[in-house]
Amino acid sequence: MITVIKLSYNDINFYDHLKKILYNENIFDIKKKYVDKIIKKVKISGDIALVELTKKLDNIDVKTMESLIIKRDILKIAYDTLSINQKESLKLAANRIKHYHEHQSKFHISWKYEEAPGILLGQKVTPIDRVGVYVPGGKASYPSSVLMNIIPAIIAGVNEIIMVVPAPNGILNKMVLAAAYIANINYVFTIGGAQAIAALAYGTESVPKVDKIVGPGNIFVTIAKRAVFGQVGIDMLAGPSEILILSDGNTNPDWIAMDILSQCEHDEKAQAIFITWDINHLNAVYASIKKFLLKMNRINIIKKSLSKRGALIKVEDEIQAIELINYIAPEHLELSINNPEKLLNNINHSGSIFMGRYTSEVFGDYCAGPSHVLPTSRTSRFSSPLSIYDFQKRSSILQCSLEGAQYLSKNSSILARSESLIAHAISAEYRI
Amino acid sequence: MITVIKLSYNDINFYDHLKKILYNENIFDIKKKYVDKIIKKVKISGDIALVELTKKLDNIDVKTMESLIIKRDILKIAYDTLSINQKESLKLAANRIKHYHEHQSKFHISWKYEEAPGILLGQKVTPIDRVGVYVPGGKASYPSSVLMNIIPAIIAGVNEIIMVVPAPNGILNKMVLAAAYIANINYVFTIGGAQAIAALAYGTESVPKVDKIVGPGNIFVTIAKRAVFGQVGIDMLAGPSEILILSDGNTNPDWIAMDILSQCEHDEKAQAIFITWDINHLNAVYASIKKFLLKMNRINIIKKSLSKRGALIKVEDEIQAIELINYIAPEHLELSINNPEKLLNNINHSGSIFMGRYTSEVFGDYCAGPSHVLPTSRTSRFSSPLSIYDFQKRSSILQCSLEGAQYLSKNSSILARSESLIAHAISAEYRI
Repeated sequence: MITVIKLSYNDINFYDHLKKILYNENIFDIKKKYVDKIIKKVKISGDIALVELTKKLDNIDVKTMESLIIKRDILKIAYDTLSINQKESLKLAANRIKHYHEHQSKFHISWKYEEAPGILLGQKVTPIDRVGVYVPGGKASYPSSVLMNIIPAIIAGVNEIIMVVPAPNGILNKMVLAAAYIANINYVFTIGGAQAIAALAYGTESVPKVDKIVGPGNIFVTIAKRAVFGQVGIDMLAGPSEILILSDGNTNPDWIAMDILSQCEHDEKAQAIFITWDINHLNAVYASIKKFLLKMNRINIIKKSLSKRGALIKVEDEIQAIELINYIAPEHLELSINNPEKLLNNINHSGSIFMGRYTSEVFGDYCAGPSHVLPTSRTSRFSSPLSIYDFQKRSSILQCSLEGAQYLSKNSSILARSESLIAHAISAEYRI
Repeated sequence: MITVIKLSYNDINFYDHLKKILYNENIFDIKKKYVDKIIKKVKISGDIALVELTKKLDNIDVKTMESLIIKRDILKIAYDTLSINQKESLKLAANRIKHYHEHQSKFHISWKYEEAPGILLGQKVTPIDRVGVYVPGGKASYPSSVLMNIIPAIIAGVNEIIMVVPAPNGILNKMVLAAAYIANINYVFTIGGAQAIAALAYGTESVPKVDKIVGPGNIFVTIAKRAVFGQVGIDMLAGPSEILILSDGNTNPDWIAMDILSQCEHDEKAQAIFITWDINHLNAVYASIKKFLLKMNRINIIKKSLSKRGALIKVEDEIQAIELINYIAPEHLELSINNPEKLLNNINHSGSIFMGRYTSEVFGDYCAGPSHVLPTSRTSRFSSPLSIYDFQKRSSILQCSLEGAQYLSKNSSILARSESLIAHAISAEYRI
């Protein structure tokens, strides 16, 4: 009924097998021309292009830009229709995200120090003026993503946040609107895809031009973000969601199976990899997966994800496990083991690390605190979770007294002359 | 002889005039197809392609990859040939850069905090494993760039640094090699352009595949960096260098003229903009520029830069000056005024800020401490100077006890069910 690939670290060509199921970068180039055309259209024709593209691609009957704007009073109505439980859950999540990022912002601060003789150096931290937040619509429409993107931006001090969310076939998730209300958003554009990214990057008559665009989207959104990068900043190029679970054999196999299935239900291209040194445990997890699969509402998505990109991997020991974790550099890592602290020192690359058997990855998706917008597709080798750092930037500060200038002048002049930059040398020498 | 555009904030269409001399983003797309071809070639044929392309594009007679590698003993020989002054200047610069980034790294640290009941949250900071550093060769071959790129990476804890520098027509700057020696580099590849970026991103038989590429280069390098972004991390998309100088009229016009000329001598596309509310001072600076121009060794580069992209701007007051600074978001900003501290609070966007009349921008180029690799082309609106943050990344840490899991479980389950993610809900509920 379902087959998940089983691998053993000691297999011949193990890494070749593994590489086959890992991220394939070529996907980024497939739709590039199509996306470039959309971006050009919006850049040239602004609102007219936006309305036309939204009508066509999202299958909504709109005639003006006005009908693609949701004002705060409508967001409030969406919020009011929620159950008390839903309201409280969103608010708790919002508060916890706020608290985590407030803690984080204590470390990203302006500072200066004075050096003898008369040289003051520093860094000044400032928020980005205006940020665009892309929230997916359609089958991956998550209210949690609204909070996870917007609240870190608010804590970072961003002055203006422009939220876009597509409404394919006119359908909007009221929880998404309610989350925008809770996050203090004033209005939302119901646009999506490459056209929304283009509107944010270049501005239209209605959509303000932003300085940076954050938030994950589908492949068109990702290609568009890459295309406008440089014109504006972007957070990252998001691929399908992934989890890597390491278990020592002592976690209930049902728990692990559900963690695997919960990753797979996101997307046909989502990835769940399970690693253990206990072969009986591996088989038990496999059995649990099979047992639960039939009960899932998203069974078809899960089946495709599991059979195409899933893997159950037997390793010999902790050393092999660590090697694999650092190679795969997963978006989410569950250390379902005793003493996860001991292993933590050896883990170099992962977006988010869930320590111990009780720390379900799902807590991180919704309400633990850190943003669930995380580097995918092995990019945690060089990038980080969305955070206040994404919404602020630094300037270097330098200040010399006459004495300080004298100290740096001679040295600068020597180096400038070595580079044949005579104007540089003279500029430095004048300060003596 | 030389005409520099003079603008007044109160001119009709002032911003239209200004926009004409500011960065034009289209340059990125001009050579894209050509660059894509080079990248593909290196990706497919590795060292063979590298040797062939280097031979052709850098006009060097090489037959094997071996001849494109400079080992540490040769770097040392280059260092040994320097004058004592040059050696000491490079070492002083290296030490000052080291000291500044050590200070910075005190703020980018791992932390965790425990929340009642039983929820531990944190962030773990780790260095990037392997970084590629691009150092320009040819007419913009700067030893200072070697130090400004590599030392922050070392302080950040990067395990392996791969330096590339092209040697067009076989010519290498011995100061560049000496700087690599001082920065403790073991070997250097004398490759450049898009082919070097491709080699670093995908690896070849000789060039190790890196996780991130930093360092500014020419237009081909910049397009190539954009193309491989996602496969590897990149620091930024560098455009031509720029300065904006604000003077209150009390700085010696000769000093300002030299600061303008020193920016222009970098590159025909470099930009120097001068702002003041004192029209006599503006004219005096203009006169000084004309006076010094003839004495410059790079007069032709300076003339093109000044006449095409330079501007002397008269504003009414400080308020207009601040507005312009934040609009232009310059790479380098000199505040050649009394009490620059007062203005600093209002400045939101600039790569590096030089406070007061004695702080020549040239000090920042060579030895003050902060990296001279800075966001150009208005990108300081959303990006930062090269720093230890570029060479490290964060992982979020979450750890729940049974009690902590119980606290987060209900909330996660409610939100998961609102998103119709049933596997998520069950995964959360199991932890109770």
